[in-house]
Amino acid sequence: MRKFRICFSPDLLQLYSIKNTIVIVSDILRATSTMTAGIGTGLKSILPVASVEECHTLGQKGYFTAGERGGIKIPEFDLGNSPFEFMEERFKGKSIAMTTTNGTRAISVAEEAQQIVIGSFLNLSSVAQFIDSQDLDVIVLASGWRGRFSMEDTLFGGALAEQLEGKFDMNDGDEVLGACELYKNAKSDLLGFIQKVGHYRRLKTQNLDRDFELCTTIDKFEVVPTLIGNEIVKSE
Amino acid sequence: MRKFRICFSPDLLQLYSIKNTIVIVSDILRATSTMTAGIGTGLKSILPVASVEECHTLGQKGYFTAGERGGIKIPEFDLGNSPFEFMEERFKGKSIAMTTTNGTRAISVAEEAQQIVIGSFLNLSSVAQFIDSQDLDVIVLASGWRGRFSMEDTLFGGALAEQLEGKFDMNDGDEVLGACELYKNAKSDLLGFIQKVGHYRRLKTQNLDRDFELCTTIDKFEVVPTLIGNEIVKSE
Repeated sequence: MRKFRICFSPDLLQLYSIKNTIVIVSDILRATSTMTAGIGTGLKSILPVASVEECHTLGQKGYFTAGERGGIKIPEFDLGNSPFEFMEERFKGKSIAMTTTNGTRAISVAEEAQQIVIGSFLNLSSVAQFIDSQDLDVIVLASGWRGRFSMEDTLFGGALAEQLEGKFDMNDGDEVLGACELYKNAKSDLLGFIQKVGHYRRLKTQNLDRDFELCTTIDKFEVVPTLIGNEIVKSE
Repeated sequence: MRKFRICFSPDLLQLYSIKNTIVIVSDILRATSTMTAGIGTGLKSILPVASVEECHTLGQKGYFTAGERGGIKIPEFDLGNSPFEFMEERFKGKSIAMTTTNGTRAISVAEEAQQIVIGSFLNLSSVAQFIDSQDLDVIVLASGWRGRFSMEDTLFGGALAEQLEGKFDMNDGDEVLGACELYKNAKSDLLGFIQKVGHYRRLKTQNLDRDFELCTTIDKFEVVPTLIGNEIVKSE
């Protein structure tokens, strides 16, 4: 039976074998929610890069530039890390180079995976259907906060596990059990629960209520953004 | 305000600063439960060591030897890793050298801490009172399973946090929130909940029901085993 596992931090991914595996990257506040919203509204591609400098260089080559450090938009860039920015009409059919504190790092540590998929509450069911249609093991990689456990990224893993119960062996490790128990407590009021987490406290001074609401909305987009080469595009 | 944090794996401890901190090591099934039971019934000291070879050498110097690998007793040793073995009358006043898969490793990665304390459900309230009486930050270090998240070790962190609510700042990271939510779900039937975890499945063929029951018993011992030098002894 195919395995479904969750990894709580990019710093722990070395403990998993990820070859022949689909890695679903989860950075709910806000990188993977933003990527989902962008690709879901017609953005052509997103090129995730690790450093501000790389992003800047791509900007000179014609990419739009997006990103944050510590939740704050990088001043000289075209966009920050808000899903609403990526949904703007002017980016339809365009490509954005993007760097974020945790999300792009999670993507880069997973590079040996068979496939890397962008997951968020916004495309929960689409991701579930996609991975169920493949014949591969799955790891949800929670992007975390500077290597540490992040509640909201883990809750997404629990939500995905709930949708796929019975279809995968979920008993390798305790992470899936943990994520499912947490999601059970959170799901009746996901937005309210998210207001208890550390990253909400870090961001709340920035007046992002609209973002928090969108990032905890389930199944707004039917899209499975996938890394092809070095760009995230809509999976065909 | 003093900080109370939880670390989900020895592999993540490098992300925390642990100087001037009390680290509470939690390896519920079974290393720290066994240490608590031993010290709680009159064992003089436990010398935790990383390797089977070191333990063997100490055996030749007069220590009793104890330990397991993958949950199985090391054949040539005097004892395995069961709390009932450590509670035997013949070890009163004696010293045991001990090596386990995860617990002794967690102790060794925490060596820069101001103080290392052995925590388990068996001495939950004693540990809570002890750390409340000190003027130091606290980290509960879940020993995990080969570096990965372990439910039962994390539940102990949640139980301890519940006892100390309001006395520490618990908002650094999401681990405490996660552990408290999980403990909320588990506490009405801790033994039943533990039967869902990976390490229970690994051990259950070994007929350890008595051990599982003891390891989920709260406050059986009023003792705070503490690392002094390289030995775990009863804190005065």
